[in-house]
Amino acid sequence: MADAKKPKLGDNDATLFDQLFPQLVTELTEDGLANDQTVDAIQWMKKSLECNVPGGKRNRGLSVIATVRLLVAPQELSDEDIKGALVLGWCVEFLQAFFLVADDIMDDSVTRRGQPCWFRNPEIGTIAINDSFMIESCIYKLLKKYFRSQPYYADLLDLMHETTYDTEVGQTLDLITAPSYVDFSRFSIERYRAIVKYKTAIYSFYLPVALAMTMTKNNSEVDYQDARQVLMQMGEYFQIQDDFLDCFGDPKITGKIGTDIEDNKCSWLVVQALSIASEEQKKVLQDNYAKNDQVAVQKVKDLYNELNLKQRYNDYEEQSYATLSEGINKIANQDLAKALHVFAKRIYKRKA
Amino acid sequence: MADAKKPKLGDNDATLFDQLFPQLVTELTEDGLANDQTVDAIQWMKKSLECNVPGGKRNRGLSVIATVRLLVAPQELSDEDIKGALVLGWCVEFLQAFFLVADDIMDDSVTRRGQPCWFRNPEIGTIAINDSFMIESCIYKLLKKYFRSQPYYADLLDLMHETTYDTEVGQTLDLITAPSYVDFSRFSIERYRAIVKYKTAIYSFYLPVALAMTMTKNNSEVDYQDARQVLMQMGEYFQIQDDFLDCFGDPKITGKIGTDIEDNKCSWLVVQALSIASEEQKKVLQDNYAKNDQVAVQKVKDLYNELNLKQRYNDYEEQSYATLSEGINKIANQDLAKALHVFAKRIYKRKA
Repeated sequence: MADAKKPKLGDNDATLFDQLFPQLVTELTEDGLANDQTVDAIQWMKKSLECNVPGGKRNRGLSVIATVRLLVAPQELSDEDIKGALVLGWCVEFLQAFFLVADDIMDDSVTRRGQPCWFRNPEIGTIAINDSFMIESCIYKLLKKYFRSQPYYADLLDLMHETTYDTEVGQTLDLITAPSYVDFSRFSIERYRAIVKYKTAIYSFYLPVALAMTMTKNNSEVDYQDARQVLMQMGEYFQIQDDFLDCFGDPKITGKIGTDIEDNKCSWLVVQALSIASEEQKKVLQDNYAKNDQVAVQKVKDLYNELNLKQRYNDYEEQSYATLSEGINKIANQDLAKALHVFAKRIYKRKA
Repeated sequence: MADAKKPKLGDNDATLFDQLFPQLVTELTEDGLANDQTVDAIQWMKKSLECNVPGGKRNRGLSVIATVRLLVAPQELSDEDIKGALVLGWCVEFLQAFFLVADDIMDDSVTRRGQPCWFRNPEIGTIAINDSFMIESCIYKLLKKYFRSQPYYADLLDLMHETTYDTEVGQTLDLITAPSYVDFSRFSIERYRAIVKYKTAIYSFYLPVALAMTMTKNNSEVDYQDARQVLMQMGEYFQIQDDFLDCFGDPKITGKIGTDIEDNKCSWLVVQALSIASEEQKKVLQDNYAKNDQVAVQKVKDLYNELNLKQRYNDYEEQSYATLSEGINKIANQDLAKALHVFAKRIYKRKA
């Protein structure tokens, strides 16, 4: 008799996705836990996986199955395909967790997802570096288990390796651009765009769609290039929205209180401000940016208002969405274009 | 006209190996350096590669080409094969550099290869974590460039992923076994052997030979298992020698002054001592181990002598070499057995 509580594939994807995680952890750890030599290490890893991998918004992970459903007609999609797409979605979430655990150490961050950062736990500290490595390794254990016999296995591995490398390039750019002191000479719109592209857009936007395309056996180099171009632009647009919402969003809707000004972030807003500010206004920025002080933060926000950055943002948003739509309309593969339109509409004028 | 200074393939492997490194760095960085968006990050990476990857003993890297030469007759070996084996050798050295850069942070080490550890450079600090990630990523860039079209490409990737994971398991065991305070209850011969196997033997001994076997298109599961069993044992034997030489070796010959006692290492010697010491002798250990104090270190060494650990080590060495030779003699693949005998003889009774 089938377990009545077990949802069938095809039910709500977010629920299926969440329910898969404990199963993946079991699969990743059962051999190691049964081995006397490794049991202590694998118990440690299990806790790290459970604390660091789930708990995010899982937009990136869910994008894989969402894309697969947009690319393939329901009657052509087997339960195995759906399971595969969910596993690939988790691989993206593992990749993100690998980066975040390490980024928090490098950025000396305090909290993540409302909890103290993993490395801040007194019994953990720099062991978190090795924990981040292990989260990355789990990606390849999952890919091997689920995709080793597929003809596109090496393509999946290449895609994951290249995305990992690109994101690391972005993290390097970010770290060398925003040191602990204010140095606006390093901030520019070109540098801003490069950081967003490499550090965030590739793994957050291109990767989930490219994984879905690979899994559905798309071998068209042109399609990958088309998707990449649009998704890079979408990623930039999304990050600019994020930067805007960090300062001007409603915390009741966004669910978080922004700290980009205090944290000396190379945000879209400060880059725009620097590009149009008078010398006097630049001095206000110089004196008040990157200070953990509410009066200073308010001075920066007042200057942003004085410089009409909200209007500038609205203009950017309209123009960016128009360019995106235009780019998508040029794509030859109609299924792909349809999927990208859905994603673009989903983020247009988002408030959270 | 050919460049007279360019050595031909087939010359001394160590020279060829060293000469290949700058070429690999050029290949790894040229695209990124030519791209305005990434040039700063890639310059940073280039320096990290040059400072962290070469400069070791390169035994692991050279083992790949050495194994290939023992497995394949010279007349059957093309220049391309030799180049491939050298590249795989560098992949092992990149893997080691990836681990060492991170391990030094986790162990709070001061020097590495006679220089301050990479993260100790004031302009680097925790960015070293991302630098270690990038060193790892370079492995997959090299494998893709040189082996993407080979039928064994996915096997190389699987081997590298699995070795990386195993080594991380070993590092976890090591970190949770030897915290900053003395806790001998965590030291045992079983734990010692597990740490050596996972943290060191797999990537240092099994990996180079397995890469050589994969490159020479060996698909025999039995051969891999035979090689693994012998090489795991060889790795353990090598580490025990290392631990012995750290305390009792001649620094003029080993080239380094050991600090395992001061560093609270779960060394073979302390594990042996704990297994045979009286309660009184254990107290001497408890009071003097892990102290950065020459009088305390001498007391530990005196106790090791009192417990006849030199004799115990000699007995171990004889017995271990005999077991190794016996294991190798049982291997059906005669070329593989020949190669393993060469490696075993090379480390028998080593003094450095």
